[in-house]
Amino acid sequence: MRKNFGKKTWLFPCPVLIVATYGADGKPNAMNAAWGGIYDTNQVMLCLSDDHATTRNILRTKAFTVNFADAPNVVAADYVGIVSGNDVPDKLDRAHLHTERSGFVDAPVITEFPVALECELAKVNEDGIIVGNIVNVSADARVLDADGNLDLGKARIISYNSAAHDYRVLGEKVGNAFSDGKKIK
Amino acid sequence: MRKNFGKKTWLFPCPVLIVATYGADGKPNAMNAAWGGIYDTNQVMLCLSDDHATTRNILRTKAFTVNFADAPNVVAADYVGIVSGNDVPDKLDRAHLHTERSGFVDAPVITEFPVALECELAKVNEDGIIVGNIVNVSADARVLDADGNLDLGKARIISYNSAAHDYRVLGEKVGNAFSDGKKIK
Repeated sequence: MRKNFGKKTWLFPCPVLIVATYGADGKPNAMNAAWGGIYDTNQVMLCLSDDHATTRNILRTKAFTVNFADAPNVVAADYVGIVSGNDVPDKLDRAHLHTERSGFVDAPVITEFPVALECELAKVNEDGIIVGNIVNVSADARVLDADGNLDLGKARIISYNSAAHDYRVLGEKVGNAFSDGKKIK
Repeated sequence: MRKNFGKKTWLFPCPVLIVATYGADGKPNAMNAAWGGIYDTNQVMLCLSDDHATTRNILRTKAFTVNFADAPNVVAADYVGIVSGNDVPDKLDRAHLHTERSGFVDAPVITEFPVALECELAKVNEDGIIVGNIVNVSADARVLDADGNLDLGKARIISYNSAAHDYRVLGEKVGNAFSDGKKIK
């Protein structure tokens, strides 16, 4: 038996994308977006309305970073989603989030979050979707394993649950991709 | 200290989208895709190459479903990603996956997976991305709470970890969206 919920903008897991940019005054800004994902090889997409300070910043600087929110910083991640940079230009300071300049694009990386995509604006497509080229992915040393690989078990990255409006942490490993299916094959 | 990984098509959490369609012979087919996400209000996007049986099916039927893979069915979910419907037309049978016809679109819903987006093809955009209108979201009764709401704690939906090629399960609730940030505000 299945229950029908009607038209819903749901996806599971849905990412919590903290999109960071520089304002015209050089001040870092960030917002929380759930609508986005991989668009194509080395490309990410964001569905952002025009009225966001972030959208204006991306169009001017042609750059942004996508920082993945984690459980230890869930309050700050949520805060940058409910307060607009138009109203509170120092929202990152208030959230006690720190930034450093990306070495690859004209945008800030947020120090507190474990992993960031550093992106150049590729284009705004026919539907107003922001498409970025991923120029570099960077990760904090604390989420690397002994071999220098990204260890998601350490990163505690969160997901937005659009059905119940809560955040859930990505948990334990339950399988191997391109491998487990061979048991059937 | 951050480590730079260069250009990577990484996103965390990345969904495991089991895209299901009907073939020209009416036989259900499905594949495993990680590149996709919410495109806009009530819309989902998929980046699929032209050579997939799924892509041809979507263009013909103008419909598909997006079923979210879960931990109990990780082997079947991985299998449909490593075997092509072009080579193995009965791949769903081999994976012991069952389907029922969507009541809303000309596509099958996979019974074993907990939640599905039932979609009409909206268009193929300028970049070859498949954009679908979400006509209905359905969920199995086993993942509902006592009030009939979707309970992600019961659903055990998985994520694809593109950095290590493994699957991780979505875990416990760690915060409330549009709420926790008010502690700062």
